[in-house]
Amino acid sequence: MSGNTFGTVFRLTTYGESHGPALGGVIDGCPPGVPLSEPVIQHELDRRRPGAGGLTGTARREPDAVRLLSGVFEGETTGTPIGFVIENTDQRSRDYEAAKSLLRPGHADGTYLAKYGRRDYRGGGRASARETAARVAGGAVAGAMLAPLGVTVVAYTVEFGGIPARVLAPADAADRPFYAPDPEVIPAWETRAKEAMASGDSLGGIIEVLALGVPAGLGEPVFDKLDARLAYALMGVGAVKGVEIGSGFAAARLLGSQNNDPIVSPPESNHAGGILGGIANGQPLVIRAAVKPIPSIAREQRTSDVSGQPATIIVGGRHDRSAIPRVVPVLRAMTLLVLADMWLLQKTVHG
Amino acid sequence: MSGNTFGTVFRLTTYGESHGPALGGVIDGCPPGVPLSEPVIQHELDRRRPGAGGLTGTARREPDAVRLLSGVFEGETTGTPIGFVIENTDQRSRDYEAAKSLLRPGHADGTYLAKYGRRDYRGGGRASARETAARVAGGAVAGAMLAPLGVTVVAYTVEFGGIPARVLAPADAADRPFYAPDPEVIPAWETRAKEAMASGDSLGGIIEVLALGVPAGLGEPVFDKLDARLAYALMGVGAVKGVEIGSGFAAARLLGSQNNDPIVSPPESNHAGGILGGIANGQPLVIRAAVKPIPSIAREQRTSDVSGQPATIIVGGRHDRSAIPRVVPVLRAMTLLVLADMWLLQKTVHG
Amino acid sequence: MSGNTFGTVFRLTTYGESHGPALGGVIDGCPPGVPLSEPVIQHELDRRRPGAGGLTGTARREPDAVRLLSGVFEGETTGTPIGFVIENTDQRSRDYEAAKSLLRPGHADGTYLAKYGRRDYRGGGRASARETAARVAGGAVAGAMLAPLGVTVVAYTVEFGGIPARVLAPADAADRPFYAPDPEVIPAWETRAKEAMASGDSLGGIIEVLALGVPAGLGEPVFDKLDARLAYALMGVGAVKGVEIGSGFAAARLLGSQNNDPIVSPPESNHAGGILGGIANGQPLVIRAAVKPIPSIAREQRTSDVSGQPATIIVGGRHDRSAIPRVVPVLRAMTLLVLADMWLLQKTVHG
Amino acid sequence: MSGNTFGTVFRLTTYGESHGPALGGVIDGCPPGVPLSEPVIQHELDRRRPGAGGLTGTARREPDAVRLLSGVFEGETTGTPIGFVIENTDQRSRDYEAAKSLLRPGHADGTYLAKYGRRDYRGGGRASARETAARVAGGAVAGAMLAPLGVTVVAYTVEFGGIPARVLAPADAADRPFYAPDPEVIPAWETRAKEAMASGDSLGGIIEVLALGVPAGLGEPVFDKLDARLAYALMGVGAVKGVEIGSGFAAARLLGSQNNDPIVSPPESNHAGGILGGIANGQPLVIRAAVKPIPSIAREQRTSDVSGQPATIIVGGRHDRSAIPRVVPVLRAMTLLVLADMWLLQKTVHG
Repeated sequence: MSGNTFGTVFRLTTYGESHGPALGGVIDGCPPGVPLSEPVIQHELDRRRPGAGGLTGTARREPDAVRLLSGVFEGETTGTPIGFVIENTDQRSRDYEAAKSLLRPGHADGTYLAKYGRRDYRGGGRASARETAARVAGGAVAGAMLAPLGVTVVAYTVEFGGIPARVLAPADAADRPFYAPDPEVIPAWETRAKEAMASGDSLGGIIEVLALGVPAGLGEPVFDKLDARLAYALMGVGAVKGVEIGSGFAAARLLGSQNNDPIVSPPESNHAGGILGGIANGQPLVIRAAVKPIPSIAREQRTSDVSGQPATIIVGGRHDRSAIPRVVPVLRAMTLLVLADMWLLQKTVHG
Repeated sequence: MSGNTFGTVFRLTTYGESHGPALGGVIDGCPPGVPLSEPVIQHELDRRRPGAGGLTGTARREPDAVRLLSGVFEGETTGTPIGFVIENTDQRSRDYEAAKSLLRPGHADGTYLAKYGRRDYRGGGRASARETAARVAGGAVAGAMLAPLGVTVVAYTVEFGGIPARVLAPADAADRPFYAPDPEVIPAWETRAKEAMASGDSLGGIIEVLALGVPAGLGEPVFDKLDARLAYALMGVGAVKGVEIGSGFAAARLLGSQNNDPIVSPPESNHAGGILGGIANGQPLVIRAAVKPIPSIAREQRTSDVSGQPATIIVGGRHDRSAIPRVVPVLRAMTLLVLADMWLLQKTVHG
Repeated sequence: MSGNTFGTVFRLTTYGESHGPALGGVIDGCPPGVPLSEPVIQHELDRRRPGAGGLTGTARREPDAVRLLSGVFEGETTGTPIGFVIENTDQRSRDYEAAKSLLRPGHADGTYLAKYGRRDYRGGGRASARETAARVAGGAVAGAMLAPLGVTVVAYTVEFGGIPARVLAPADAADRPFYAPDPEVIPAWETRAKEAMASGDSLGGIIEVLALGVPAGLGEPVFDKLDARLAYALMGVGAVKGVEIGSGFAAARLLGSQNNDPIVSPPESNHAGGILGGIANGQPLVIRAAVKPIPSIAREQRTSDVSGQPATIIVGGRHDRSAIPRVVPVLRAMTLLVLADMWLLQKTVHG
Repeated sequence: MSGNTFGTVFRLTTYGESHGPALGGVIDGCPPGVPLSEPVIQHELDRRRPGAGGLTGTARREPDAVRLLSGVFEGETTGTPIGFVIENTDQRSRDYEAAKSLLRPGHADGTYLAKYGRRDYRGGGRASARETAARVAGGAVAGAMLAPLGVTVVAYTVEFGGIPARVLAPADAADRPFYAPDPEVIPAWETRAKEAMASGDSLGGIIEVLALGVPAGLGEPVFDKLDARLAYALMGVGAVKGVEIGSGFAAARLLGSQNNDPIVSPPESNHAGGILGGIANGQPLVIRAAVKPIPSIAREQRTSDVSGQPATIIVGGRHDRSAIPRVVPVLRAMTLLVLADMWLLQKTVHG
């Protein structure tokens, strides 16, 4: 439980630094008979790749080609662990040499030093967003398991750089820039992104995840409530600083008579976000996550070097202007991983 | 991992229904030599008891007397598991008979049925807030372990019924009504509470947890990041619908240049809430949780019976008007449990 | 995972010292709908009690009365955790004061000191065989879950003090002295026991566990093979020094052509003991455990005191002449716990 | 916990089939600062390779070249997960096509079918002994962590084909045929092996593992006792049918006065095998495992096909005449993995 394994029965273990030889993972506990192949995973990885999601701003172009190493035979999972690897092919670690002795504000440089007494300073090492590729691969397997059961998960951006979007057609967001749920908001978001880039700055936003077809009953009280596991899953993604379910923080300002969803058919409201007492109630799950602006900005910042001396830094390397487009598929993947695990756990309750 | 154990090395396992014979728990992994006695735990339980926190509204008066059953010898922990039990002495389950066949909106009645095919309908059973007494007892042990290390955790209410409070003297909040961090807000909150009670309604709010003295290095990337574990811990408390760290959702609207904390000594800001890359950076941890209004309201609501037929319900029994005062000590306890676990895990990294 | 929780999905967590206020446990992950009551558990506890199993020699007479605290409603499990407690009522800790500073050979006195830097020296504390009462209670719940599925587990003594028994009617052993599978061996065993007692000495033996009706497919390769989990379960019981499956150590001396079981119907042999590749094959499980002679003997022994000075000790207190009769129900319980867990895990594979 | 992760804090997760693209694993929880490189692991893998250990009989020649993918920087571990992969380069899966529909006696063919409803029939798939290469790699990392602490583990063959060996110089066994602890026994073992090969048969034996320098205090009562974890670790290796500690099964026939080790300095005996109450006492750990004769024999055997029809089979492919030489390094590796985990867990107790 040293932090690199996720899940109880459907379990993803990951490894890999930004500029090491490769990253990858092992999925244990996936039942046999799930149709799976490299293209199924590759399709999801391509969405997460720098440049996908419509927001430019990174020079790094990794093919992120996944290779399946085990656990699949004749096109289906066998029940044994599924190993996969993604080679790092475009590492350019020389870019990062200059900053070897400086701590980047908003990054994990100093905290990795504090924790481990050392750090792989090439491009963030394990703390790099590149780590999330293995999560997306794991989520693709979870999604393949859940798809025939009628569970679908979509994720989209509901606010970017302070500009909110209407949620009109969330299922279409996957093919739009910024994963926008409303095409009309895109020009405003593009303008906002250009402004930030022009001033060497970066932007954050809010992502919503919507899970449909989740059967009532998923969730393991009292500590492994469905919402607790979702919060754990999403807050564990770099750059996420807040998670809420259903009405979330707004619920704190409502009266009980406003926030309670009457139990009627069809449902009239979903303040609960599909979860009561930590257990899915059959309504859609609604989860939102706050994503901070990416800390790598092209402006001089005050910092300290590794020996504690004051310094200034201009963070070089190749960077996105916002984590949003890369985080959207990751949050979707993490939600799928939670649901796959909870689905299997529920089989032990009522199977 | 069926949901009733919390933690990896410092582990709390709990049991108990609202109206069963007793509730309690087992703490495993507490090191030897921690001064511990029943009064140490009782002190924390008394804060959580109905009526504490200054907000009246429940008729139930449980003494919540804890009894230590093992793991303590001559006033100190021995390293063996610490069993404890809290008897249920004032159960009045007849109050709940009437609602046996009706599902209460906003409660877990229907989801427990969906999950388990049955439910202990007496007062919420396992889904009752009464379950959290065992969390508070566990947190008291975690706190006893952490206290000599200089870690202190305080929790207080920063918003109640939509009315925010200034955070003036958080350490004093524990002795004020509503756990208010500013005595001047109390009259407004009392008025708000009376209004809600008069209309048979209920209120929510926002609780902040502040952890001081947390050493840099705690947190286990990548899935068990400190913020991920805190989100998991707090979102798993009934009524919590959102969790944020540092600037939280507000960070989504800031520019990178605004949200980055310069690495200077002394620190000038703490947008990160004391966590970078999932690892504590030595600054105070700042966590906020949104608490929904309590769903038991004294007003007629539309619902369904257990067979799915439409019905109306007026929830009887003894109820608080807001969960806020009872949840404050619980969130503090959960934070202590996370920190105790992360402290011990960090010993395996750099010990 | 600090050692006091057993199982992955069907999980038993235990606590309690020999001479503390009480011992007990929590069973998490038991599905709803299992018929359960205090008498069901008490029946198994009574078998384990000093004096049961036909071998006299202890003066301690604990009623070992179990009290169910949660997780059962209207005579059936609800799916929530099952808490139980057994009070210690006959502790006589004064008996042990004299030996407070001396380490008893063959006991855990010195190793607990080495591990924890202290120990609860009253009657063995957590290392006392009394701890196993909670295992038997847990096994009773596992057995209640498995019984309707046709799984039955019996345990009996196949060798005592060096004298082997024929295995004639293992199912009847539960009601015989020494859990003997052949009534004719009992007089010889009684003579052996009397000889040992007369010389202030103690005896060991070999216990066999037979599990019938275990469905093919149970077991989780590669580390959680069914035989690996059984070995873990049984070797973790105090006094057990060896575990073997099927032909066990004898298989090391056979040729492959002798040890392979032909796959024919009905089966002609069971050298494998019902497990191939760590997975049950549908034949009976056959497991044997070697139990050392109880280390508390009424003879002077050379030892050291807690400061490391040489000393001699005559162990006082109330002691059995052999652990065998008390261990038989414990090994049966541990086997049931393993099977219950593996049964539930298998639901996640093929459910 | 679906069976492919081993350990609590120092954790090895493995994947890979005999004839898939590759096998490998992830080690999580290894502290930073352990000197590690591919040659360190390769050295151990070479010992396990078919043909090492001095016993001929397999035609397969895999280079078993390990590639480190993460977690190591500038020659030392960083604290992040260590990914590694071993490509399968000599698969010849056509050898196994003929036996696709037949179940091999003594193998896991039928039980994998029962568990998963399918199987990767190429060379045993996940049930192949090839899986253990990842264990040896994991053990190499555990050994690298433990070496500077003075812990050393050796393993050797104490009985082969029914012929016992004297344990004269166990530390030299690693460089001898059969890992023999006495060079004089080798001719008799070679003769025995040739006889078995001539008759198309196979042999088993008994392996002893000796761990020196294990500090007193390791082991986590009550379920994760050191001996319980060792039994779990060793019994989980294919072909192992029995595990014993210290005097093991022989202890069942001793009197207490014979089996108790007097607590004197220096120690006069070690019947306990270095473990009391599940905790190391500072003496050498002594563990023995019984290994069955390899089930792939070159003789006709009665079996059934996958549809249940009676059949006969002569198992083709490339096979060893005994698992002994390949299992010796695997049992050493598993012991190192247990000790590494227990070492780190002990830091949480007394750190």
